[in-house]
Amino acid sequence: MILAAAASSLDMEIHMYFTFWGLLMLKKGAMERAELPATYKPFEEIMKKRLKEMKYPSPYEMLKMAKASGKLKIYACSPTMEMFGVKKEELIPEVDEIAGAASFLNIASEADITLFI
Amino acid sequence: MILAAAASSLDMEIHMYFTFWGLLMLKKGAMERAELPATYKPFEEIMKKRLKEMKYPSPYEMLKMAKASGKLKIYACSPTMEMFGVKKEELIPEVDEIAGAASFLNIASEADITLFI
Amino acid sequence: MILAAAASSLDMEIHMYFTFWGLLMLKKGAMERAELPATYKPFEEIMKKRLKEMKYPSPYEMLKMAKASGKLKIYACSPTMEMFGVKKEELIPEVDEIAGAASFLNIASEADITLFI
Repeated sequence: MILAAAASSLDMEIHMYFTFWGLLMLKKGAMERAELPATYKPFEEIMKKRLKEMKYPSPYEMLKMAKASGKLKIYACSPTMEMFGVKKEELIPEVDEIAGAASFLNIASEADITLFI
Repeated sequence: MILAAAASSLDMEIHMYFTFWGLLMLKKGAMERAELPATYKPFEEIMKKRLKEMKYPSPYEMLKMAKASGKLKIYACSPTMEMFGVKKEELIPEVDEIAGAASFLNIASEADITLFI
Repeated sequence: MILAAAASSLDMEIHMYFTFWGLLMLKKGAMERAELPATYKPFEEIMKKRLKEMKYPSPYEMLKMAKASGKLKIYACSPTMEMFGVKKEELIPEVDEIAGAASFLNIASEADITLFI
C-alpha cells in the first residue's frame, strides 16, 4: 500500500492483483484487523506503535489515497474467491474487477515494474 | 504452477528457475507431498478440499500441461544441488537444465515479467 | 547477495533497496548474525555447514565483492529507519543513500529486472 500510494503521487498507473491469502485482505474490515505473519510477529507491536506516532496512514487509508488519484485498479482473483467461498458483496467497494491469472499476466506483461509481494 | 499453466495457454514463453527450498520441489514425488509453510498452514485443509471439489489440477499436473505446450523451460540451481547433495537422477524428468545465478540473470533480463515467488 | 555478486560479475548495474525487516540487515554486524526465519529454520544447520565446506563466501563478503565492482548501489528505507529508530551511524559503510519509496519506484521503473525478495 505504501508503494501504491507513492506510485500514485508520482502519477504512475498501478494495478494490484490479490490472490490466495492476499485476496482475504480485500474482505470488508480485513485490512483493519490484519496482523503480521508469525515470522514477523515480534515486530508488530513496535511497528504499530511507531507508525501511529509518525501519523502514518493505515493500509486502507493508503489504498483510498491511491484510489482517489484515479491511477489504481484493484483485481480480485476469481478462482481464489471460489476456493474460499468469498462473494463479491463481501469485498471492499474499491475492487474494480474479478479476474483470473490470464488477466494478471496480460497486465503484468505491459508493466514497467512487477512485484510479487 | 497456475501462472505457468495460464501463461502457456496464452502462448507465452515461460522460464522457471528453482533455487534453495524451491529446488527441493523438483525432487521426484516432492510436489505431491508438498505442504504449506507454517504461516499458511491454517489454510491448507480447506484449500486442498476445495481445489479437489473444483477439480483443479494438481501442481505437478499443471507443470506437465505447461510443459506439453512446449513453452516452459525448467532450471535447477546448481549450487543448491551441491549444497543439499541432490543428484540429477533424483529430479523429475521435466527439468531442462542445471544452471547457476548468471543463467537466471541472463534469462530474466530478457523477460517481460519476472516474479520472485 | 548471490544474485548481486553474480550480476556484478556480468557487469550489470545493481540497485538494492532495503526496507522493513530487510533494513535491519544493514545494521553493523547484523548480516553476520542473521538467522533463517522460522519457516526455513530446519534448513539452517545443513545450509551453514555445507556452504562452509563449499567455501562459499558469506552474505557480507558477497556484498563487498559486488560493491568492489563499482556496479552496486545500496539504499536504506528512510521511513523504516524512523520507525525502528535506526541511525545512519548504525548502518554498514557500504550504504550509499537513505531514500523513500518514490526513489525505489523511479529506479525500478528503469530496471530490466526487479525482484521483491
